[in-house]
Amino acid sequence: MVDAPERSVSDADEEIMRATYRALREHGYADLTIKRIAAEYGKSTAAIHYHYETKDDLLAAFLEYILDRFVAAIHDVETTDPERRLDLLLDKLLVDAEDHYDLLVAMLEMRSQAPYKEAFGERFRRNDEYVRYLLRTVIDDGIAEGVFADADAERVASALMTIVDGARTRAAVLEDPTELAAARRVTDEYVTATLLADES
Amino acid sequence: MVDAPERSVSDADEEIMRATYRALREHGYADLTIKRIAAEYGKSTAAIHYHYETKDDLLAAFLEYILDRFVAAIHDVETTDPERRLDLLLDKLLVDAEDHYDLLVAMLEMRSQAPYKEAFGERFRRNDEYVRYLLRTVIDDGIAEGVFADADAERVASALMTIVDGARTRAAVLEDPTELAAARRVTDEYVTATLLADES
Repeated sequence: MVDAPERSVSDADEEIMRATYRALREHGYADLTIKRIAAEYGKSTAAIHYHYETKDDLLAAFLEYILDRFVAAIHDVETTDPERRLDLLLDKLLVDAEDHYDLLVAMLEMRSQAPYKEAFGERFRRNDEYVRYLLRTVIDDGIAEGVFADADAERVASALMTIVDGARTRAAVLEDPTELAAARRVTDEYVTATLLADES
Repeated sequence: MVDAPERSVSDADEEIMRATYRALREHGYADLTIKRIAAEYGKSTAAIHYHYETKDDLLAAFLEYILDRFVAAIHDVETTDPERRLDLLLDKLLVDAEDHYDLLVAMLEMRSQAPYKEAFGERFRRNDEYVRYLLRTVIDDGIAEGVFADADAERVASALMTIVDGARTRAAVLEDPTELAAARRVTDEYVTATLLADES
């Protein structure tokens, strides 16, 4: 069992996170500075340093904020039908990412620094673990209800995340956002092959 | 039709490429300097600048060198059996990468800079195009020989590269080289579902 991330950011934190989001999309990670985030925040750099000692502390908090928003979006989904819920999860992970293409480019930069910055590595691992847990849960529910074939939910969840991460990397590196929608079709093929195999 | 990259590097170039390879594995991309490459080369930085004006010029050449080696390794494979040849290609792309884990970490850093450095973006796009061409060719051969189902070879090749890129990203970001072997099994499942569907 994995705990959902905490959702208790103050108004100032929330505003700084939104400013970070805009600054990241505008400047990318390598050229991001506290000064540029402060410009988006509309306050001094000191006002940001009051909350976050370093840029990396702020960005580690930003990674939690991003997961938080993702989890909130998922929880808002009303359906309990496993097949529909898995579809919506994969839409959130792939299709919706196209609206945040600039963020995706900045996130790949941050991901590439994970082996060098433990705080980043830790957050990315935790986020990945949580999203895989969401996928695994819905797959297990579907197996229990008999709508999915009796597959290894953990393995299927990992395979789907591999496709998701591949699409995100390719969309950024090849500067081609259509990779996301193409990968969404690959996840459908994979789900059909592994979870809906007996229904054909 | 995509041309194979040229394979005419001088001895000095070859030595500089080997030195770059070692320096990248040792220091990563962000901390790579011409001085560090020169230290591996055993000559002065001037000796390197004689061949490459900037670090980025050298690294763009390095990306071609890497593809070159990959293509040479593929051409050495003797079999013409499409199923076996596809297996070997996927082994090269995923299993063999585990032996070069440090390079994979450095390569993700370089990939993340592709949207900001046109010379990198251009090389990554060209490399990806060539590897997809190799995959597509072997799939088309298999379809023509009747060992593969009549699938859209271009789409299957892209899907396989999405899985490959996802595994490489995950192996680096999550610091878990076993992602590569796990993804190799996912490619097998995908090949079975899309190309060997009629044989089950």
